[in-house]
Amino acid sequence: MVACQGTEGAYSQKVCDRMFEFADILYMNTFNDVFSAVEKGMCPFGVLPIENSTAGSVTQVYDLMEKHRFHIVKAARQRVDHCLLALPGTQLSDVKEIVSHEQALRQCGAFLAAHPKIRATPMENTAVAAAHAARSGRRDLAVIASRDCAALYGLSVLRDDVCDTGNNFTRFICIAKDLTVYEGANKISLMLSAAHRPGSLYRLMSRIAVQGLNLTKLESRPIPGKDFEFRFFFDIEASIRDASVRALMGQLQAEADQMVFLGNYEEMR
Amino acid sequence: MVACQGTEGAYSQKVCDRMFEFADILYMNTFNDVFSAVEKGMCPFGVLPIENSTAGSVTQVYDLMEKHRFHIVKAARQRVDHCLLALPGTQLSDVKEIVSHEQALRQCGAFLAAHPKIRATPMENTAVAAAHAARSGRRDLAVIASRDCAALYGLSVLRDDVCDTGNNFTRFICIAKDLTVYEGANKISLMLSAAHRPGSLYRLMSRIAVQGLNLTKLESRPIPGKDFEFRFFFDIEASIRDASVRALMGQLQAEADQMVFLGNYEEMR
Repeated sequence: MVACQGTEGAYSQKVCDRMFEFADILYMNTFNDVFSAVEKGMCPFGVLPIENSTAGSVTQVYDLMEKHRFHIVKAARQRVDHCLLALPGTQLSDVKEIVSHEQALRQCGAFLAAHPKIRATPMENTAVAAAHAARSGRRDLAVIASRDCAALYGLSVLRDDVCDTGNNFTRFICIAKDLTVYEGANKISLMLSAAHRPGSLYRLMSRIAVQGLNLTKLESRPIPGKDFEFRFFFDIEASIRDASVRALMGQLQAEADQMVFLGNYEEMR
Repeated sequence: MVACQGTEGAYSQKVCDRMFEFADILYMNTFNDVFSAVEKGMCPFGVLPIENSTAGSVTQVYDLMEKHRFHIVKAARQRVDHCLLALPGTQLSDVKEIVSHEQALRQCGAFLAAHPKIRATPMENTAVAAAHAARSGRRDLAVIASRDCAALYGLSVLRDDVCDTGNNFTRFICIAKDLTVYEGANKISLMLSAAHRPGSLYRLMSRIAVQGLNLTKLESRPIPGKDFEFRFFFDIEASIRDASVRALMGQLQAEADQMVFLGNYEEMR
């Protein structure tokens, strides 16, 4: 059983179907619920979006990482082609409001800017927004969601591919309670905090650079209540099966104030 | 004349009043409008939020930096103490919906989580949300905004200080069309893009580290349409009045694919 945020037709569902041969999906309302379901043992796996190539990091998910115990065991890069959907018979000129996830709205910023009279309203998930639009019965409401949501919720495609760019990808992670390193794992994710003094982040990065390893992601999130102090998230192209990488982990652990090894996994293309 | 996003009572207004002795504020609907007003010479200055100590970077503002010509000439750190406001006579138990800016909602995440039946709806600005709540006449609607908004819009304070932490600060920048470096400027902001190859970000950081300079902020934003390539924003504690810093700027310019010198300014505490 895999926990996902949203409802049927969510992009997380497509990812689950790629990651698991028979994915029995349990839909949750929030990202926090997905983490909790895995932490409490209700679901062995959870799938979460982490970063989009247009809108950037899903910072809510990063902030939840600090609050839960989990490991990253799989990952996938998923193409995201948003469509504009509405009840059959609706014309674009009828539309006064568009609902979707906040990140999806940002990925379609150019389309929304070209239609300044249409109000964009964020909702918790693209598929949840599609279900909402279908139920509403409103002919002045459209939704930005996947093409699959049209068939699922009886909506028509008003516009194909409303993304700013055709190259729109979201990276998803699959979390589990325990650390499992599958064959082919080539990416390590770490959560680190470093002292608030000049050069501390740089010193951590030096450790990685001298090993010739590639840092594919560096995310910093503020530590609430602190005066612009940060928690760092590193993704490194490496495998803990290498002795030199295990030595690096030890060095980082010693250098950082706190370090959490989030996992070592492969990212499906 | 200073362009700000929002309406009277916005946190940007407090910042303008600190930055300018007689601030004649022109309120705009969007952050993009603030950049445009300065770029087109309609307003000599514009004030924009850039980062919050609880919710993190205002990524929309970072993404707009690439689209406009401007310089950063001033900055300020502003304490943000949100209150829960509603029409007089409203009880917390009546409230079914809370409106505010998305960042403000995140800064009050614990309060919202403790009231799961109340729906949180993002709006473009805290003061705009307060004006909306006042106009609505609804007694099931509350708003998260500054205490000043209560008096301005005839609302009552239902709850004081609904932030997750008492230490909630937002950093604001003041932009102008031309580069001006005022006396006391000690912070440099740069926008850089580096080749998509291992270690390129690290090499840029090395240049700063060898000079013993402190990198106070490193933000990465995806370049839309690219395969997870990034544009980097650096804040460095330095002054271009120092010859060694001017030499560093030359080195970074040579090393990076592209570098924009955004400004050298002082941040008011």
